[in-house]
Amino acid sequence: MPGHTVQFDTLAEPLMVSAGELVVEAASRAGLEIQQPCGGQGRCGRCAVRIESGRVRRRSTLRLSQADVDAGYALACQTVLEGDVSIIVPPPERIQRRLTTDHVAPDAVVPEGYDPGQAQTVRRVLLNLSPPSMDDQTDDWGRLGAALRRVAGVDRLDASLEQIRQLGPVLRSSDWEIALTFDAGREKDGTAHLIRAQTAVDAEDEPLCGLAIDIGTTTVTVWLIDLVTGQVMHQASEYNQQITRGEDVISRIIYGSKGTGGDELRGLVLESINGLVETACRRSGVDHEEIVKATISGNSTMMHLLLGIPPESIRLEPFIAPINHLPLLRAGDVGIAMNADGVVDPLPGVASYVGADITAGVLAAGLRATPDTTLFIDVGTNGEIVLGSSEWLVTCACSAGPAFEGAGIQSGMRADKGAIEEVWIDGNTFEPTCRVIGNAPPRGICGSGLISLVAEMFLTGILDKGGHIDETLDTPRVRRSPRGAEFVVTWAGETEIGEDIVITRVDIDNLLRAKAAIYAGFNVLADGVGVELESVERVLIGGSFGKYINVEKAIDIGLLPDLPWERFEYLGNTSVRGAYLALLDRESRAEIAGIASSMTYIELSADNTFYEAFTSAMFLPHTDLSRFPTVAAATTNGG
Amino acid sequence: MPGHTVQFDTLAEPLMVSAGELVVEAASRAGLEIQQPCGGQGRCGRCAVRIESGRVRRRSTLRLSQADVDAGYALACQTVLEGDVSIIVPPPERIQRRLTTDHVAPDAVVPEGYDPGQAQTVRRVLLNLSPPSMDDQTDDWGRLGAALRRVAGVDRLDASLEQIRQLGPVLRSSDWEIALTFDAGREKDGTAHLIRAQTAVDAEDEPLCGLAIDIGTTTVTVWLIDLVTGQVMHQASEYNQQITRGEDVISRIIYGSKGTGGDELRGLVLESINGLVETACRRSGVDHEEIVKATISGNSTMMHLLLGIPPESIRLEPFIAPINHLPLLRAGDVGIAMNADGVVDPLPGVASYVGADITAGVLAAGLRATPDTTLFIDVGTNGEIVLGSSEWLVTCACSAGPAFEGAGIQSGMRADKGAIEEVWIDGNTFEPTCRVIGNAPPRGICGSGLISLVAEMFLTGILDKGGHIDETLDTPRVRRSPRGAEFVVTWAGETEIGEDIVITRVDIDNLLRAKAAIYAGFNVLADGVGVELESVERVLIGGSFGKYINVEKAIDIGLLPDLPWERFEYLGNTSVRGAYLALLDRESRAEIAGIASSMTYIELSADNTFYEAFTSAMFLPHTDLSRFPTVAAATTNGG
Repeated sequence: MPGHTVQFDTLAEPLMVSAGELVVEAASRAGLEIQQPCGGQGRCGRCAVRIESGRVRRRSTLRLSQADVDAGYALACQTVLEGDVSIIVPPPERIQRRLTTDHVAPDAVVPEGYDPGQAQTVRRVLLNLSPPSMDDQTDDWGRLGAALRRVAGVDRLDASLEQIRQLGPVLRSSDWEIALTFDAGREKDGTAHLIRAQTAVDAEDEPLCGLAIDIGTTTVTVWLIDLVTGQVMHQASEYNQQITRGEDVISRIIYGSKGTGGDELRGLVLESINGLVETACRRSGVDHEEIVKATISGNSTMMHLLLGIPPESIRLEPFIAPINHLPLLRAGDVGIAMNADGVVDPLPGVASYVGADITAGVLAAGLRATPDTTLFIDVGTNGEIVLGSSEWLVTCACSAGPAFEGAGIQSGMRADKGAIEEVWIDGNTFEPTCRVIGNAPPRGICGSGLISLVAEMFLTGILDKGGHIDETLDTPRVRRSPRGAEFVVTWAGETEIGEDIVITRVDIDNLLRAKAAIYAGFNVLADGVGVELESVERVLIGGSFGKYINVEKAIDIGLLPDLPWERFEYLGNTSVRGAYLALLDRESRAEIAGIASSMTYIELSADNTFYEAFTSAMFLPHTDLSRFPTVAAATTNGG
Repeated sequence: MPGHTVQFDTLAEPLMVSAGELVVEAASRAGLEIQQPCGGQGRCGRCAVRIESGRVRRRSTLRLSQADVDAGYALACQTVLEGDVSIIVPPPERIQRRLTTDHVAPDAVVPEGYDPGQAQTVRRVLLNLSPPSMDDQTDDWGRLGAALRRVAGVDRLDASLEQIRQLGPVLRSSDWEIALTFDAGREKDGTAHLIRAQTAVDAEDEPLCGLAIDIGTTTVTVWLIDLVTGQVMHQASEYNQQITRGEDVISRIIYGSKGTGGDELRGLVLESINGLVETACRRSGVDHEEIVKATISGNSTMMHLLLGIPPESIRLEPFIAPINHLPLLRAGDVGIAMNADGVVDPLPGVASYVGADITAGVLAAGLRATPDTTLFIDVGTNGEIVLGSSEWLVTCACSAGPAFEGAGIQSGMRADKGAIEEVWIDGNTFEPTCRVIGNAPPRGICGSGLISLVAEMFLTGILDKGGHIDETLDTPRVRRSPRGAEFVVTWAGETEIGEDIVITRVDIDNLLRAKAAIYAGFNVLADGVGVELESVERVLIGGSFGKYINVEKAIDIGLLPDLPWERFEYLGNTSVRGAYLALLDRESRAEIAGIASSMTYIELSADNTFYEAFTSAMFLPHTDLSRFPTVAAATTNGG
């Protein structure tokens, strides 16, 4: 059989190859090392190259989407050269980004068709009042109201006593030309709320800003928004300082229920928010007084703690939140570092464990935009799941435990510098290759690393479908310790901490419980509305943790349903994006309220099909392998 | 001509009288002294007796209403015995009361047809909530709202953040049986405002109270009300402590505009109000927390000062108030000693000088109850006048100056103990008889005493129609001092103060200006709407000063229009009574708002007919004597 040539873009000369040779073999002969963390089993996708021209045969495209294949991508370890071929070898970081962020939606794009003059929640209007006279004896407030009606179509305006006190002097010092900033209120033709009355001169060129705030259990995110253009001026995130008082919502509630714990937690989250606001203001040259509105998203516990509302009942059966639909609040009462007369709009939740982060997330994800059956998930300490379409919505919350946050795991840690976030295991040698956040020596394993690790251990046969470690394997990494069987991911000498980084049988059980809870949630929702999970047309992943989940690995362990890659979309922080939309646009705000009201909440602990679904999901990937055909294929293929 | 007999009820035996003998003459012969302070000229009415049977001829009935005559009353000094007559001589205090308070309406009567369950502004309802369960996951707030809708027909309830914070614990400690107190809001089917959520047990037998408050420039009045029955539990008045910082609204505004003057005045009036509330609570066994609503009436300046709203513009042309229609306020923000979450409802005014005291007064006076053309006046430092009927209302404010309050007068004082409040002068001797408040030695003359004094001086010829003292009269009481001619009312030896109590030419000019301003106000209003003053069917007198005005004396000097007595009605403090109605009844509150909105305000200083009317009224009683026929008759008769 005649030879062919292959031209790698990184090499000067073409290379002769024999027919049937793999791309990795040819490259290796030419001294070109292509990474194969999974040991050439076509599972990790890190050896992806782009075939510019020529004929090849792809034995497996497991890690590639159809779009990838259409664009010419092929796995170097699984692709046979069948003619004269020209190949581009992308730099490793490009592959990495392509695999993990291809489908990440842009975070902060001004909504299409956004018209700054319309549907805004906050407006500033210039009013040129005719001065009073002996013939026109209307009082100041009535004069203002009449002008506002004429200029802005606002029939009713309310104001605090303090604002009323300041009005007369402002009107007179402005020579009856004032700039009035008001919140249009949630309801169309409802009452507007005065935020600020300034002389027109003072208001000139002054920014009109808002905040979209997402309070996560772990991370607080603040966007500073120009309310006139809709542009995001600054984005910032930092840990929720409450973390020092408990890592999950339950421990926060317990802490907040004792003595002054509630006040303390309120103070801590305000410190986090106000620190971010401070930074955003400094970077953008904005004064706090110029921030006149904030929308707040977050889970129900975070919302209650921020507002100082006792959250105890959220934790105790029957798990009832004091309030899901909060009124508009005065910023000064809430304590956010902005104009004290500004308006804080806490977005509505559905239930104690399906909060504003989900209703805002559903809006931001556009779940209701099409009649397609869509699954929306936000996985963190709890996994909140929404199944629905433009016509209907059901939701539930799965108590996943902290495993996905890296907590309760022998070598677990948060997704921080030094965390192992992805693992590939060579199917022959059982040697792992790790990607570590910050490219540093590893300190532990974060949630996504754990998913990746368990998936690889299962695919390479280190774990059986029950999650048991095969202690007969010929590798020193599998060993028995006083706490049972374990697998060494990184030897002490290669770590930052000077200890072996391991995964134990207990860790695996924790992860199985977490993923089983989520998957059982999918089942209960789908069964509840009579939809087959396989028929779900889109899977939208929100939340900050979702960003790090490798979809394929999550399918491998049975966390996500086994659907084609193309149906998955990672949307980033949908919670803050929903808050952003609600900040700009009154119709979006109304839609979030509509979502919160129309969603059917299913309390899993009261659902008698949940336990069975959970038990069936406590396997890798599931007791019913027919639900995971691609995983079944991969285990056969890669064995 | 044969003699007749007369039988006085206070004498054992009948008395023979000659035909044509006056009642006083017969009485005198029998040793029965009937008071004749005016010297037997039929002007003071203090000699009124009741003819039980027999024929008499009344030469004059000046001081008697038709009702009095129908009831048999006759003036002993003006009534001739023409047959056998039986006469009752009432005790002096009874005559006095009949003359001054016959038409005083009861202050605090629960409005007819008042149904405690209906049209109330504040309600307390017992809600027996079904507890949440795994099958009923509604949040606390939603559960409360649903029950409130069902039980009370309230669709929307708002609450402060602090109230929301307290709700969950109250619901759980109450075992889901709570008493909810809320303000129904001003608008029908509008938003209700949460005041208090208590356990049903705590609320049992607990009073539900409100305050009706009238803030006068001089006097603050507080009524403590049982909101369930509508009964007045306690009434109390005291001086507005702001008096130490200026006696009239203008000097208060000036004081309040300097430095911390506004805060100081606010603190002073709050001290006055809260002192009265304290007393009312103590006397009635009510706790401050049980007072959940207050309605506030008062002139516009008093309202602005109470609420800390800068009132400067009220004083400066074009005399514009910052706000006439205030929103409902939180008691804690206003500073009244009641439940801090209670609602304060400042009643609406019309203009800077026609305040809530007038709109509330018009309601309380029932001015709009009939199509009769009615004049409503409230005379104090300013005289506010309303002319109207059920169909229309016009109003103006006359700057009367402080003469009616006894200020700016040589021997003037407030209507307090020791003040001369009524005077009769003997037409022959020019010796005055005085009635003094508290029956004490006199210290000065109050406003009503001044009116009475000037009327008597005019009727006895001491004053001419221009108000000049006739210095040719043969009495030591008329004398000339460095400040011009004056009349000694009480010699130093008979006073408390050891000085002559006098009235000077300057005092008389002040009084003329004050009464002319009021009367000119009547003219302008009547002319403005094309009504003859003579055709006014009712004259309703409100305000605390009005209580002391002797209508006839006020007509004598040309302060009030010369209409039959029967048309005058003294209504007491209509301002606080209006506040009381608005506190109990939402429709009354709505009617006050309707009155405020529909009243046409005429600014006299911008009216070009006012000055002429004022000049014409600067005489006793008026340049045009045909406007005052009974006064013309009295001066002819009594001369």
